[in-house]
Amino acid sequence: MAGNFHRRLGLRTALRFLSCHHSLSVPATVRPLVLHTLPLAPALGQYGVEYRMFHAGTDKPSPSPAAAPERLPFSRVTEEDLTFFGKLLPGRAITDPDLLETNNVDWLKSVRGFSEVLLRPQTTEEVSQILRYCNSRNLAVTPQGGNTGLVGGSVPVYDEIIVSTALMNNVLSFDSVSGILTCQAGCVLENLSLYLEDRDYIMPLDLGAKGSCQIGGNVSTNAGGLRLLRYGSLRGTVLGLEVVLADGQVLDCLSTLRKDNTGYDLKQLFIGSEGTLGLIAAVSILCPRKPKSVNVAFLGCETFEQLLQTFQLCKGMLGEILSAFEFLDSECMRLLNTHLKLPNPISDCPFYIVIETAGSNASHDEEKLHSFLEEAMTSSLVTDGTVATEDTKIKGLWSMRERVTEALTHDGFTYKYDISLPVERIYHLVTDMRAHLGGRAKSVVGYGHVGDGNLHLNITSPAKDLSLLAAIEPFVYEWTAGCQGSISAEHGLGLKKRNYIYYSKPRQAVAVMGNIKAMLDPKGILNPYKTLPDNLKLP
Amino acid sequence: MAGNFHRRLGLRTALRFLSCHHSLSVPATVRPLVLHTLPLAPALGQYGVEYRMFHAGTDKPSPSPAAAPERLPFSRVTEEDLTFFGKLLPGRAITDPDLLETNNVDWLKSVRGFSEVLLRPQTTEEVSQILRYCNSRNLAVTPQGGNTGLVGGSVPVYDEIIVSTALMNNVLSFDSVSGILTCQAGCVLENLSLYLEDRDYIMPLDLGAKGSCQIGGNVSTNAGGLRLLRYGSLRGTVLGLEVVLADGQVLDCLSTLRKDNTGYDLKQLFIGSEGTLGLIAAVSILCPRKPKSVNVAFLGCETFEQLLQTFQLCKGMLGEILSAFEFLDSECMRLLNTHLKLPNPISDCPFYIVIETAGSNASHDEEKLHSFLEEAMTSSLVTDGTVATEDTKIKGLWSMRERVTEALTHDGFTYKYDISLPVERIYHLVTDMRAHLGGRAKSVVGYGHVGDGNLHLNITSPAKDLSLLAAIEPFVYEWTAGCQGSISAEHGLGLKKRNYIYYSKPRQAVAVMGNIKAMLDPKGILNPYKTLPDNLKLP
Repeated sequence: MAGNFHRRLGLRTALRFLSCHHSLSVPATVRPLVLHTLPLAPALGQYGVEYRMFHAGTDKPSPSPAAAPERLPFSRVTEEDLTFFGKLLPGRAITDPDLLETNNVDWLKSVRGFSEVLLRPQTTEEVSQILRYCNSRNLAVTPQGGNTGLVGGSVPVYDEIIVSTALMNNVLSFDSVSGILTCQAGCVLENLSLYLEDRDYIMPLDLGAKGSCQIGGNVSTNAGGLRLLRYGSLRGTVLGLEVVLADGQVLDCLSTLRKDNTGYDLKQLFIGSEGTLGLIAAVSILCPRKPKSVNVAFLGCETFEQLLQTFQLCKGMLGEILSAFEFLDSECMRLLNTHLKLPNPISDCPFYIVIETAGSNASHDEEKLHSFLEEAMTSSLVTDGTVATEDTKIKGLWSMRERVTEALTHDGFTYKYDISLPVERIYHLVTDMRAHLGGRAKSVVGYGHVGDGNLHLNITSPAKDLSLLAAIEPFVYEWTAGCQGSISAEHGLGLKKRNYIYYSKPRQAVAVMGNIKAMLDPKGILNPYKTLPDNLKLP
Repeated sequence: MAGNFHRRLGLRTALRFLSCHHSLSVPATVRPLVLHTLPLAPALGQYGVEYRMFHAGTDKPSPSPAAAPERLPFSRVTEEDLTFFGKLLPGRAITDPDLLETNNVDWLKSVRGFSEVLLRPQTTEEVSQILRYCNSRNLAVTPQGGNTGLVGGSVPVYDEIIVSTALMNNVLSFDSVSGILTCQAGCVLENLSLYLEDRDYIMPLDLGAKGSCQIGGNVSTNAGGLRLLRYGSLRGTVLGLEVVLADGQVLDCLSTLRKDNTGYDLKQLFIGSEGTLGLIAAVSILCPRKPKSVNVAFLGCETFEQLLQTFQLCKGMLGEILSAFEFLDSECMRLLNTHLKLPNPISDCPFYIVIETAGSNASHDEEKLHSFLEEAMTSSLVTDGTVATEDTKIKGLWSMRERVTEALTHDGFTYKYDISLPVERIYHLVTDMRAHLGGRAKSVVGYGHVGDGNLHLNITSPAKDLSLLAAIEPFVYEWTAGCQGSISAEHGLGLKKRNYIYYSKPRQAVAVMGNIKAMLDPKGILNPYKTLPDNLKLP
């Protein structure tokens, strides 16, 4: 296919352009004192922090495409800069290295930066002044929400100034007739959910990190999560954004209208662009009514083929009340049992399904669910199962799916892949990977969102293992490109996957992305080294 | 509010920059023969065709912001050009003025262009060659789908070459597991619906023009229509696009994946940009399962307040099976009775509602609908009503809503407005407009999509009436801007509304749009004079 051919061609170009030089030293700054007080190997979990060269060891002459490129010639923070920030944000321009520690390291503890300044604005106007100043001074900036991303997109790579939205956490308005919520970017997803629940609404997205992730970060990364199957992507539910551009200009696209066809839909540029085109300061979003009835079924299947047939049956019989269809394999269950002591709620099976229904009439929903379950059992698609209608039990069943990520962190060094594929093919990648790796990996597990064709493939090893990595990549990306899949379904590209973009996007498209970046952020100060590949030479 | 202030400021700037010079002559070309054979006032309906100066008469010194600006210095089509097109598209490069007639005039017969060449490519490669050639020759191009738009976006203004997608009408693939359809841009919406119906799926959008409109045009204009309430906007359901850029480059973003976060989502740029940034050649779209049960209720209300209360009740009680909530007022009913001889299916009321349910279980759906209707009647929200479950009767009830546009064309010269507002306010605009116009208009009617906060306000007069127009505009736009509404909910801006953009978008946003246009179409050959305001000076 022509598309695929282009993508492969593009990739080769990308690899050819990759810098082979890589400094291993902690970057020098004009304020070395702060850096010297930073522990070089802080106790950040049993597998340690990968100092920006993750995936690239000193024993390898050329770094992995995931390794950070050389520092770009941005200015370094001076005392004058700190004075400016201190005046602008009294008590909210942080330079204490201990306080900065959690902001410099990602949630997975797989990448870290060396920022010496954390700014905590409270208003859009403050963000605007920060960016106007940084742009004029050529200072690089990393916007940061809840810092729960999985691709190293939310932490600095070198000494970028961290602009955290954590204190921008006010709900601005909620219209209980239309269900439209407007809030600042730093509102934590779970807090918004609780706020809405009291008003008989829910957020259109839900994800495992809800307790820490912020809505601005969710929008910046176009987070998918557990409800996408039912309520669609943020590209449809986000109605408006207020964005601060690289030069400090405030772009007011904070519409609260469900329909607006006046010119180009600029907000789409900032959804999923990982803070590289602007800093999202506020969001308006369309929220669905809180369902009156929720049921969760946890089912077991013998084969993935049967799991897919169950999905088809489920779509037909549950129809409009189906709100999630998730899966995990027996390897995930083993990790949940071993590391988190979560017992299997049903008998052992090769595959497990979590089905959620959400509807407006409990008896109708239960009737639909029971008819479906009867049919699934009778036709032997499903071998065992349990259903929960009560909140605590629902949460218990959901945790079997939601806590797989956590269980993996206890299993060893984890290589994480987030792949979109035609739904029939999603588990083939897991079995092919197992066969390909043989005994080299500790665990190879698959779970994810069947309803969205989104597989989370995770591979663990007792410690970081470069030969294992070399066996996984580019195998996993080539396999995905061969099926016209996406190498990042919902996690984004961030730092880690930026150079793999050509596996999923043609060269021309990446070139247009580069032009957009150059247009909106000509100095490239916003979240540098992220999303776009290194071979794009921006003006 | 700051946003509103900016918009108003922006508008004044726009009006100040509007050109006051306007040529009234038919544009001279190097091939005057064709133009001379064009009738200057062809018989195109009882209200005549507005020769590109619609809204601007010779009796007025300065044209309306809707009038076409002066012709830009594009090249004129030469014999060599025609030879090139004739070779590229044998028998499909049309120059016969009679054949070109319907392509030069819009569906409303309110604007017309003077194109002398209509090109009918069959493949993306042909489109690519056309645009590469036109770009190198500096020839302007108007992409055209079904030509059913309402804002003059799909017809040339001067002698732009029309590139019609009508012969690009093949379904490329359909995946019956995922419901993902991939097809060429020229597929007629109704044909796609019929194709899918045989496969137990439906299109996620439906609109009155379905018999002629093409999916490429639907996507280019981000068409809303009757199912948006349930299935969301095209921004969520369109999964991929193949687009030919102004220079002929083919941008392959024809993904068939539900989730893909690899870089910026370029396809969004082309959704709703009315062919000004690229020509959409193919579309992939996520289609919902065909509902097993559909019901339509046609209800009458005494007040708009009660109609809104009915909407709230309906959302709560019908929940996930609600697929449309539309309204029309008694003035619409009068026009349906008078001009189309459609009898009112219920007793006369000031307001009528069309509610559609679509679900997977007929008895559940009927039970929900009946409970809702009982509650609506008991609480006197609704005074009369009828329900249809059978296909012919459903179509009959729907026609009361869908044929209002057609009834209006028989009532006189129609001024059409497509406004997004907070749902509580949508009918206030109609009553305020009636009070404002007094007896000057023949009819002032309101109908539209309550569920989306989208009002179609239409005003008729026996013939074109410039003093009436001056009473309507800018009143209607100022009123809308005062509520932070959108002056084009779903119709787009096209030629007619391009200069009103500042009522709904701040100056900075329009400037960014101009930069995007300049980046993707540096010579401005794609659909010139459309979408963006005249005061934007593109490089």
